[in-house]
Amino acid sequence: MRPFKKVTIIGVGLIGGSIALAVKKKKMACQVIGVFRRKSTLRRALKRKAVDKGTLSIAEGVRGADLVILATPVRTIPQVAKDVFRFAKKGAIVTDAGSTKGWLVCKMEGMSKHAGSRATFIGSHPMAGSEHAGVEFARSDLLEGAPCIVTKTRATDRTALRKIVKFWKRLGSDVKVLTPDHHDASVSFISHLPHIAAFALAGAIPSKDLQYAAEGFKDTTRVASSDPRLWADIFLTNRKKIAAACRVFEKYYRSIVNAVVNGDYEKTARLLGAAKAKRDKFFYGKK
Amino acid sequence: MRPFKKVTIIGVGLIGGSIALAVKKKKMACQVIGVFRRKSTLRRALKRKAVDKGTLSIAEGVRGADLVILATPVRTIPQVAKDVFRFAKKGAIVTDAGSTKGWLVCKMEGMSKHAGSRATFIGSHPMAGSEHAGVEFARSDLLEGAPCIVTKTRATDRTALRKIVKFWKRLGSDVKVLTPDHHDASVSFISHLPHIAAFALAGAIPSKDLQYAAEGFKDTTRVASSDPRLWADIFLTNRKKIAAACRVFEKYYRSIVNAVVNGDYEKTARLLGAAKAKRDKFFYGKK
Repeated sequence: MRPFKKVTIIGVGLIGGSIALAVKKKKMACQVIGVFRRKSTLRRALKRKAVDKGTLSIAEGVRGADLVILATPVRTIPQVAKDVFRFAKKGAIVTDAGSTKGWLVCKMEGMSKHAGSRATFIGSHPMAGSEHAGVEFARSDLLEGAPCIVTKTRATDRTALRKIVKFWKRLGSDVKVLTPDHHDASVSFISHLPHIAAFALAGAIPSKDLQYAAEGFKDTTRVASSDPRLWADIFLTNRKKIAAACRVFEKYYRSIVNAVVNGDYEKTARLLGAAKAKRDKFFYGKK
Repeated sequence: MRPFKKVTIIGVGLIGGSIALAVKKKKMACQVIGVFRRKSTLRRALKRKAVDKGTLSIAEGVRGADLVILATPVRTIPQVAKDVFRFAKKGAIVTDAGSTKGWLVCKMEGMSKHAGSRATFIGSHPMAGSEHAGVEFARSDLLEGAPCIVTKTRATDRTALRKIVKFWKRLGSDVKVLTPDHHDASVSFISHLPHIAAFALAGAIPSKDLQYAAEGFKDTTRVASSDPRLWADIFLTNRKKIAAACRVFEKYYRSIVNAVVNGDYEKTARLLGAAKAKRDKFFYGKK
């Protein structure tokens, strides 16, 4: 038996589209519905066969769904959620794919507790993606092996939490359950800070020097080709944690630059070596 | 006819080994000799079939060579070069694969002009590589499509320069001729600065958060797995230019962080958008 009858995905871009394709491939639902803001995107998603049916109406898409996944840009999620909670059936689970969680989970839990709402909210952050946007780049294996953080608060419904953890696991993700605050602190280091550094590197390079760019520059700045408005959204909803992560980065960066400028070979090599050792230990399992 | 009779490569690691393999594959020389510091590396290079013959003696390796390529860590090049110029035959061309050029080309041209030296020096920087070190990772196509900067000064012998440009082109590189000073300024932006940022990112991340790392973090910090002593060498031989590039980076970085912390959505999106546009225009040819 398929775990869900009707799964509705609101916002069928790279992430929403990849979730939709994976749900279909893994036979997780009898029907996958997409909710769109624009007719052109609806047509592209149908052409890509990401969803079984598409609609421009949240009410129509959400009605009767067991599981609703909000995959719109993070700042728009609470706006969209108002209608979702209004039209969701009793016992429905609502989750999301937003990159920041503290402010969002707080808002969403408030809404779901609000008189009249019969659905439960569980925060999710499937940490997959690429610098490309749109359903054309969606892939059914995008979440395979990728980390997915599911959030837990005092208010979290334990049964719904278990179902959502199982859902992402079956899509192939490596699921971890964290508090929203813990999530935001970790992603500020692991995702937001590297994005800011990459954008700053690409922004700082004189255009005339790009012709000498080799693989190192290309990889280091790859994520700077991501959607600016999407990432401005993400950054602005995690300001305090980002500021804290930036201070740690700046301290390490400043130590390296000072050691270099002062001609201190041993200190430079030691700082670079410690960074390499930490990275290698995790990615290659060696010291 | 093969353009060179005997090509000698001193330092047969990732770069030296890849040059050796490419020279053999493209039939650029009748014989490729490797000069090694350690017997173990010599054995590994012979096993890898990177060179036809290996020796631990610079004198033996260099004698009779038409072309000598110095591919040791950048700070050791002038030390090794002393013996190279001493034993090189009349008319031999000496080049290198060092990542910094200003201080090095100056030293090397001085040496080659020194009474008794009968070889000519041309500075080269094939901009290829990876975060892995050693002849095991060498590939005959590593230089294929990669930028290669060849330096030109007032003292540069024009005939030797033409030969070296032709040499790298035949190995598949995209050759540009620059002054050493221009080279150092460009690579400080395109290579040294991104390496420093990547090392600082990897150094700043709390180890416990690495488990949530996705593709973005992996790519942004890939070059932080490079050899720390090799890169300390490179950074310390380009201090002034690196300091200047860092100032430009810090300004852009600070603008983004301030816009984020101040909650200025439009300014954040504009700064990210300008960085993306510059990168996309170069890598994907779109605005």
